[in-house]
Formats: sequence, C-alpha cells, structure tokens
Amino acid sequence: RRSYTITLLPGDGIGPEVISVAKSVLSLAASLEHISLQFDELPVGGAAIDLTGAPLPAETLAAAKSSDAVLLGAIGGYKWDTNEKHLKPETGLLQLRSGLGVFANLRPAVVLPQLVDSSTLKREVAEGVDIMVVRELTGGIYFGNPRGFRKDDKGEDFGFNTEVYSGSEIDRIARIAFKVARKRRGMLCSVDKANVLESSMLWRKRVSALAAEFPDVELSHMYVDNAAMQLIRDPKQFDTIVTNNIFGDILSDEASMLTGSIGMLPSASVGESGPGLFEPIHGSAPDIAGQDKANPLATVLSAAMLLRYALGEENAARRIEDAVIETLNMGFRTGDIFSAGMTLVGCKRMGEEVLKSV
Amino acid sequence: RRSYTITLLPGDGIGPEVISVAKSVLSLAASLEHISLQFDELPVGGAAIDLTGAPLPAETLAAAKSSDAVLLGAIGGYKWDTNEKHLKPETGLLQLRSGLGVFANLRPAVVLPQLVDSSTLKREVAEGVDIMVVRELTGGIYFGNPRGFRKDDKGEDFGFNTEVYSGSEIDRIARIAFKVARKRRGMLCSVDKANVLESSMLWRKRVSALAAEFPDVELSHMYVDNAAMQLIRDPKQFDTIVTNNIFGDILSDEASMLTGSIGMLPSASVGESGPGLFEPIHGSAPDIAGQDKANPLATVLSAAMLLRYALGEENAARRIEDAVIETLNMGFRTGDIFSAGMTLVGCKRMGEEVLKSV
Ligand SMILES: CC(C)[C@H](C(=O)O)[C@@H](O)C(=O)O
Ligand SMILES: CC(C)[C@H](C(=O)O)[C@@H](O)C(=O)O
Repeated sequence: RRSYTITLLPGDGIGPEVISVAKSVLSLAASLEHISLQFDELPVGGAAIDLTGAPLPAETLAAAKSSDAVLLGAIGGYKWDTNEKHLKPETGLLQLRSGLGVFANLRPAVVLPQLVDSSTLKREVAEGVDIMVVRELTGGIYFGNPRGFRKDDKGEDFGFNTEVYSGSEIDRIARIAFKVARKRRGMLCSVDKANVLESSMLWRKRVSALAAEFPDVELSHMYVDNAAMQLIRDPKQFDTIVTNNIFGDILSDEASMLTGSIGMLPSASVGESGPGLFEPIHGSAPDIAGQDKANPLATVLSAAMLLRYALGEENAARRIEDAVIETLNMGFRTGDIFSAGMTLVGCKRMGEEVLKSV
Repeated sequence: RRSYTITLLPGDGIGPEVISVAKSVLSLAASLEHISLQFDELPVGGAAIDLTGAPLPAETLAAAKSSDAVLLGAIGGYKWDTNEKHLKPETGLLQLRSGLGVFANLRPAVVLPQLVDSSTLKREVAEGVDIMVVRELTGGIYFGNPRGFRKDDKGEDFGFNTEVYSGSEIDRIARIAFKVARKRRGMLCSVDKANVLESSMLWRKRVSALAAEFPDVELSHMYVDNAAMQLIRDPKQFDTIVTNNIFGDILSDEASMLTGSIGMLPSASVGESGPGLFEPIHGSAPDIAGQDKANPLATVLSAAMLLRYALGEENAARRIEDAVIETLNMGFRTGDIFSAGMTLVGCKRMGEEVLKSV
C-alpha cells in the first residue's frame, strides 16, 4: 500500500466548502486504488490571520513542506482587503508559493464540449480551445526588490516595484514549458514585452537560446498586448504559453474566462523538487461563501492533478477526471455553469454525484 | 479663417497608406468648415531609422512640438525587431509620447451596430459595448529607473525594470479619467494590482482620495487579473477604465479586440498643454503593407478626435464621424471587417467613399 501525506489548506470564502468535497473525492479514489492518504488540515490566508495573526503561520508552512503535496481552496475576502501588506491574505499565498519554491504554475484553459455554451465567445471560436499557460510564479515584480514607498525632498510620494529576472530563473521555467509543450501539440508561445522592457529582452533571449534543446517544439514570441488580443480573436492558435509572473496572472485569467467556466479550472504549481501546490484558479468568492452554491469541480480537478503530478498516481487521477466528465454528462450543474435543461445542484450535492462515478 | 498646423507622422508598414487617406479626409472636412490646415510630414520609427539613424529625429520632435496637433500612422516592422533598444522604432514612439508630455491616452472601444458580427463574442454580449480606457502613458514601468541589465559576482545575468508612480502622476491621470467618466455614463473603474504591488497601493490610495472632488462619478476598483476576465465575461459592466501604462497597454488591446474591428479604433493622447498625439490603435501590419488592404478608418477617426480635442473644431469632427458611419451604412468594408453581402474595398477606395460623405 502506497501512502502519502496531503496538506489541506481550505483558506477563506468558499475554500472550506470546495476542499471538503475534494477531500471526499480524493479519499475514495485513493482507497479504490489501494493508496492510503493522510490529511493534515491547516489555516492560511484570512482564516489564519484571524486565528494566529499571520497569513501563513510557520506551522502551516512547515506542515506543507514536509508533506507530499498541498491542496489549497482559496484565499482573501473583503474583511481583510484594507489590511496592511504583511496582514493581507494574499501575502500568505505568496509566502507559501515562495516557501515551497513552486516556480512553475500550470494553468490549463480547456473548453469542454459539455460546457461550450457557457463561454461568451461564439461557439465556433470557443469550441476545441485547449491552452496551457505556464506562468513563472516565484519571481518578477511579485517578489523583486527594491520595492515600497518613498518621499522625495519636495514631499512627493512614490510607490515602486522591481520587475527582475535572472537568466537561470528564465531558463528553468522555459525548460518546464518546453517539456509541457512537447507532451501537448508541440507549440510554445513565449509572451513578453521585449519591445519596451529590458527584463523581457533577457527573457526572450534566454527562451530563444533554449529552443535548440527542444527541436521538436515550435517556439514563437508574442508581445503581451497582442497576446491579450489574440486570445480573444482566435484562441485556438495557442497550445502552450509561457510567460512571467504578472503577465501570466493577467493572461491565464483571461484565457480561463474564454472557457466560460472558471469554476471548472484547476492549476498546479511545481518546483524542482519538494511538494507541489494544487489549487482551483477561481478566487474565494466571498459573496456566495457558506451558501452551498460554489462549484467544487475546479478543486476536485486540482486534486486529480495532485495525484498525477505530485504522486504519480495516474489511475487515481483518471478516476477523478472521468467521474467529473460523467457527472457533467449526466446533466448536473452548479449555478455558474447552469444552462436550460440541466439539473441545478449545490456544492455538496455535486460532490455526492461525483463520488458515485469515481 | 482659423488656421492650424498638423504634424503628419506616417511611420512604418501601413502607416503611410492610412495617413494619406486621413489627410485627404481632414483637408476636405476642414475646408468645408472654413478652417485652413497646414500639413508638415516627417519621419518616425523604422522609416526614420533608415533615413537618419534615429527612431525620433530631433527635427521630427521639434516640428511636432511646435504644431497644433500630431497625427501618427503606425510604427514598427520585422526589419527592425532585433535592433538594440535605442534603434527600435518603438523607442521613437516612446520618446515622442514623453517629449510631447502626453500622459493621458484615451482609447475608446465601441461596438458599432453595423459591425457587431465582427466580434468573436456572442451578439448579446458584444452589442452596445462602449468602453473608454484612460491609460497613463508617460510613466510606470515604461519609463521607470533603474532599468537595464547587470551581472552578479557569479556571472549570473539579470534584466530589470522599475514600475514607479508618484502621487502627482497618479492624480493628474485620475483627474482626467474622472472628467471623462463624468461626460460619459458617470462610472469609473480603476484597475490595479494593489493586493501585491506597492505602486498599485499608492495608485489606489490617490485615486480613492480624489473621488471626493467628483461626487457625480461612481468610482470602483478592480484587480487587473479580474479586469482581464470581466472584460470577456460582461464588457457592458464597464464605462470608463483608468489604469497604469502597462496594464493599460494590455487591457486596452483586449478591450479593442472585443469589438472585433481594431481597424476601426482611434486613440488620443493628451497632456496638460501643448499638442496632442492622435493615432489608430492598430499596429503597422507589415504583412499587408503596400497592398492597399489596410483599413484607414481608425486613422480617419483619429483625425476626427484631433479636430475635436486638439483644435476644438467639433463641426469638422462630426462631419468626419458621420461620413464614416454613412460609408459603413452603404456597405463598404475593408477585409478586416468584411462580412457576406457587403462591398469589399481597399484602403484608397474606402477613403474615396468617405470623402463623398464628408
Ligand atoms: C491572490 C493573488 C495574489 C494571486 C496572484 O496574483 O498571483 C491570484 O490572482 C492568482 O493568480 O493566483
Ligand atoms: C509599440 C509599443 C511601444 C506601444 C506600447 O506598448 O505602448 C503599443 O503597443 C501601444 O499600445 O501603443
């Protein structure tokens, strides 16, 4: 019997609801595959601030680091929005990513045939979209120094941040992206702003230099403003996209919204070694928290990614993914993906239906 | 007879073709309104590099500064893409914006009823979209120092840029945005990344503080990743958006693509005083340059903005805008906005048709 420890970080808003569903699904899939999972549940984000005064308690990070993989719900909420930086839920998430060294964030944006009408794009534009955004997650303007506030002699206030990448930071994320592209349709589009920014010029240079190592992957480059357009004009032109932290934040959210069902989209963040971090791409949705309205499928699919990428348990991962498709095929829909003729269900019930098909 | 000097900067790619059409239209509209225009044509971008060795020759900037307004075609092309920074066409455009002090870039994204089917969005989502993006244009990461490349002791390369805003830079762009919103539907959405970046925290603080001066405008705040999603989910929720230089670059291009007809979209860049800069939002499209295929209407509509905002010549501006609508109503379309049943025309012919209705 293979056995693993999973850190569960429910977080804020709808986080606890979706994590609870994902935990049941994970448990069942694991036991059917004769895997034993031990769960360790800890606070992060706003919940951790309220409980311990810090958005990422040392205990939470330590538990995460010593486990085999981390499954996160969501963090943030109006309540903590005006907190100072070191007391923001988001800061806890950034500390977690950085603490785990998960520099590569993989965000698939797939339009499922069952949900193509949820997209605001015309059917013929949305149908068949299957994009993987590989976002650099522990560098760039999110973490660059110097950063902060200053006043000049005249009393003028300034706020500033540093966008910075080293060659090796670029190389390691690009390598992962090339490998991901190789397993997909073999096309990698690197997105930057190399016509203006020096950080992007280095990015483009290093990514281009690596292309020789991956002759089977077709590399192209695109400016970020153009990419924001092309994702809407013709999303099917993209296979794998690799980009920096801030551009990845923007473009992966844009790409996910093309699918019309961000309640369905998982993500995986991985490093060179150590436990990976798996989370739905949606936020904490404080407006519907605690109302049993959340779509748990993004977190359930994140759990499947966890089984596949962190634990190498392909069969258990497949069980979950197939169960989700089966549940959709049977017509069950949460509010965010509901359309006429389908059966509207809440978060818990959706979980129960998935369990039946695992 | 009122008389003005207009600097024409055709630039690269399709720039010369679209400027030539816009010039004829401007001339006719002006003469019908008893305005005399003097045109001064100068090189910028790649054309200027080839001619003079610099992307913004001193003579071009001087002429632009001493004129009443500047109309630009487009800059850039594959030929100069690998040039060093100071010899990139884009650098000329940035020097021009900075040299003219045009810190406020107004980019309308309007879905015309005649062209709603050009959008890749479903008709019910696209119909009626009317967004104005007010982008800060002479600050932020585009111009921030320090910037460049460095090596550390271990020989590791770094590329870096600084995102920086002063309080007064934020105030002046926000004031313009509030005023623009007031003349529109009274809603202003300020976009930032204040959950992560100090530069954005100052942005949000200063914009919020100004709200008291504009009680008739409803101010909201949105994170840039969410804005990138919401533009696709429900673009009609937006009236006026104000944001920094890099986020504005990305979001205004995204917003313009929602309309499905970026060949139709003008922009205006203005400062505290001095001549404004007017240009289509599309690029130089080197792949169709010189083939009489470009859509000149974005530049023609930029000329109308020039008449209105730089010269205060509302009647002449209206003449041009009405002529464009009339030409579309008659069914003339360039390739980029063509649909079945319409009359496909080239750049020149489109110009001739507009002239008939001016
Ligand atoms: C919550 C926030 C700090 C975070 C980010 O910007 O990375 C989120 O938007 C995301 O994309 O996971
Ligand atoms: C050409 C480039 C420097 C420019 C910019 O990034 O500002 C362009 O994308 C634009 O938006 O006008």
